[in-house]
Amino acid sequence: MDHELIREKAAQASSLVADAGADCWITYVRESSLNGDPILPYIVGCDLTWHSALLFGADGSRVAIVGRYDRQMVVDTGAYDRVESYDTGVRAPLLAELQRLAPRRVALNFSVDAEVCDGLTHGMYLDLVGIFRTAGCGQEIIGAEPIIAALRQRKTRAEIAHMKEAVRHTLEIFDLAAGQIRPGATEAGIASFVQAEVERRGLGFAWERGTCPSVFAGPDTAGAHYGPTGRQVQGGHVVNMDFGVRVHGYVSDIQRTWYVLREGEREAPPEVRRGFATIRASIEAARKEIRPGAQGVTADAAARAVLASAGFEEFPHGLGHQVGRVAHDGLALLGPPWEKYGKKPFVPIEEGMVFTIEPRLTVPGHGVVTIEEMVVVTAGGAEYLSAPQTELPLLAGR
Amino acid sequence: MDHELIREKAAQASSLVADAGADCWITYVRESSLNGDPILPYIVGCDLTWHSALLFGADGSRVAIVGRYDRQMVVDTGAYDRVESYDTGVRAPLLAELQRLAPRRVALNFSVDAEVCDGLTHGMYLDLVGIFRTAGCGQEIIGAEPIIAALRQRKTRAEIAHMKEAVRHTLEIFDLAAGQIRPGATEAGIASFVQAEVERRGLGFAWERGTCPSVFAGPDTAGAHYGPTGRQVQGGHVVNMDFGVRVHGYVSDIQRTWYVLREGEREAPPEVRRGFATIRASIEAARKEIRPGAQGVTADAAARAVLASAGFEEFPHGLGHQVGRVAHDGLALLGPPWEKYGKKPFVPIEEGMVFTIEPRLTVPGHGVVTIEEMVVVTAGGAEYLSAPQTELPLLAGR
Repeated sequence: MDHELIREKAAQASSLVADAGADCWITYVRESSLNGDPILPYIVGCDLTWHSALLFGADGSRVAIVGRYDRQMVVDTGAYDRVESYDTGVRAPLLAELQRLAPRRVALNFSVDAEVCDGLTHGMYLDLVGIFRTAGCGQEIIGAEPIIAALRQRKTRAEIAHMKEAVRHTLEIFDLAAGQIRPGATEAGIASFVQAEVERRGLGFAWERGTCPSVFAGPDTAGAHYGPTGRQVQGGHVVNMDFGVRVHGYVSDIQRTWYVLREGEREAPPEVRRGFATIRASIEAARKEIRPGAQGVTADAAARAVLASAGFEEFPHGLGHQVGRVAHDGLALLGPPWEKYGKKPFVPIEEGMVFTIEPRLTVPGHGVVTIEEMVVVTAGGAEYLSAPQTELPLLAGR
Repeated sequence: MDHELIREKAAQASSLVADAGADCWITYVRESSLNGDPILPYIVGCDLTWHSALLFGADGSRVAIVGRYDRQMVVDTGAYDRVESYDTGVRAPLLAELQRLAPRRVALNFSVDAEVCDGLTHGMYLDLVGIFRTAGCGQEIIGAEPIIAALRQRKTRAEIAHMKEAVRHTLEIFDLAAGQIRPGATEAGIASFVQAEVERRGLGFAWERGTCPSVFAGPDTAGAHYGPTGRQVQGGHVVNMDFGVRVHGYVSDIQRTWYVLREGEREAPPEVRRGFATIRASIEAARKEIRPGAQGVTADAAARAVLASAGFEEFPHGLGHQVGRVAHDGLALLGPPWEKYGKKPFVPIEEGMVFTIEPRLTVPGHGVVTIEEMVVVTAGGAEYLSAPQTELPLLAGR
């Protein structure tokens, strides 16, 4: 738990409440290790066991109401003016605070469009609405999406530094992993090597361990989101890996692609080379469309156009997502105007956002070519957080 | 992921839908690694990334609708009659299923009383209600608490076996840890030793690592839910540890207490011995009140009565909670009729439930005496899952 970063983000949050048109922003959780609200790492940095309310007033006040045993951890953050605690129930201290603040318009953590802004469970929503009724407040309830999205998206220097460190480790581990990709090696074996290296370095995994890394060797694999199998690498395979680590709470999310030479081959077949070049061109075309004020739908379309004009099928997912404390972070998205993405592709891009760019295509008979780069949005455009993959590494076939 | 156990629990769930008075039970999630529904490990056993609906009909049918890349993992469980997948949005395939099933009364995962039954976020609730309106179904929405609570509470033989294995490891590690508790050792150092042993055995932690184990040495500690500090063990300290491990997805949650002798002492001071005997008596008094059909409030009161009659202050928390895939599991609770526990202390106890019994008391000048045992409810009453702590171990003071 980095108390300085929590104080910095809590202060940032306070500055966003009035802008969102709310009198008060309330995060309301219980047993957060089970039903965690994704905003907690930013404003408290620990799990909360009993019913807990974190109140950010439009006046800048910050009050936490938590169970007795969680009090000290919240006090230690230094992020709250007051930390109230209780033994038997949250209702009395919460009513007292609500009556003091008397907020008419309350922002709560729900959103149809963005999962990172949707941490309030429906049962806790019902509970809170009952308490508002008793307190005579919260006549208008709005989603806290503008507050939470800004808080997650507008990254501070400290947050970017953590992510750069995660990226550095990831690329180093990719380089080590390449030495393991040879005929006879299994997807699962390569993944185990990577996981052992993550642990040796004392890092965390960017997402659930079962698919971190994902390794796909050759044609006819599940393609994504599937755990590594006993499938063996062979000459002629395109092998790709999707992988990231967690450093100081922030993650990386990067993909790399390799080609395994067949006996006698000195270079990858023309169709594989063309696939790789198309992916590279697609990433660069998209990156040029990423700048403050632009919409993600434009970058996504630019990447798709490159694949289409080269005759490849379009990828069945968005071009890229934000990255932060989780691999799929933020509200704004580089994606097509598909139902499942809601308004995300149309949310304006801002400085400080970190995006992935990850087009993919299939080269029949060889496998999936996919590169995933990470970029940070600056005033001048999108800058790579790492050295991008510009060459297709050729691995010895035997 | 244990597919056999998932199929067993999914079948159990199917048998509960009609009993709950529902035409269909729907679990509705997205990006579950972020906003996970606590029921997922029982019915699917993996994270789901895009909008996903798991439909259990009162007719016994089980259909999953998930994003393309999650399909294979769900198919692999063998728990669903059909697994539908999509690329652009869940709405069309979900509407088709809802129109086929035409459920009037739909159970969803929300509960004011029980966090384990409250996995549906408010944003996803709003989204689903909109889809019901289009489909012309779901005219009545009820909480799925009876289904979920029964599923978590009525443990199968395989589940109990996993928990017994977790308990066995926990007690072995407590024994090893006792060798580290000596004057000059810090709470944090003892905790590190325990964590290294957990990792050496390839086990998981029962709850967040920062407080697993919790170690409290001597008087004036935070008492519970607080990470181990640099505080040093001294002669005259009562030391307690709260700890559990995860084995095959199931956890243990046990506390043990030790006494560190002062120079020249051959036994613990009378007030410490009296505190320990009181805790032991309190646990036994409670255990006798735990049987199918009884209410947890009775066991809690029995334990409190023992402390009160010995002149100790009552503990500011429930006597015990259920344990399962998480340390605080289930709906029925051994607790007092306090607001924060809602109806939990009044939910009838059933065979197959696993509870902790964990009274605590403070011996001024020495520390907190607390034992936490785990019991399983059988037809004949509550049986210890492990050998209970019956002696206060005396550790060498130098």
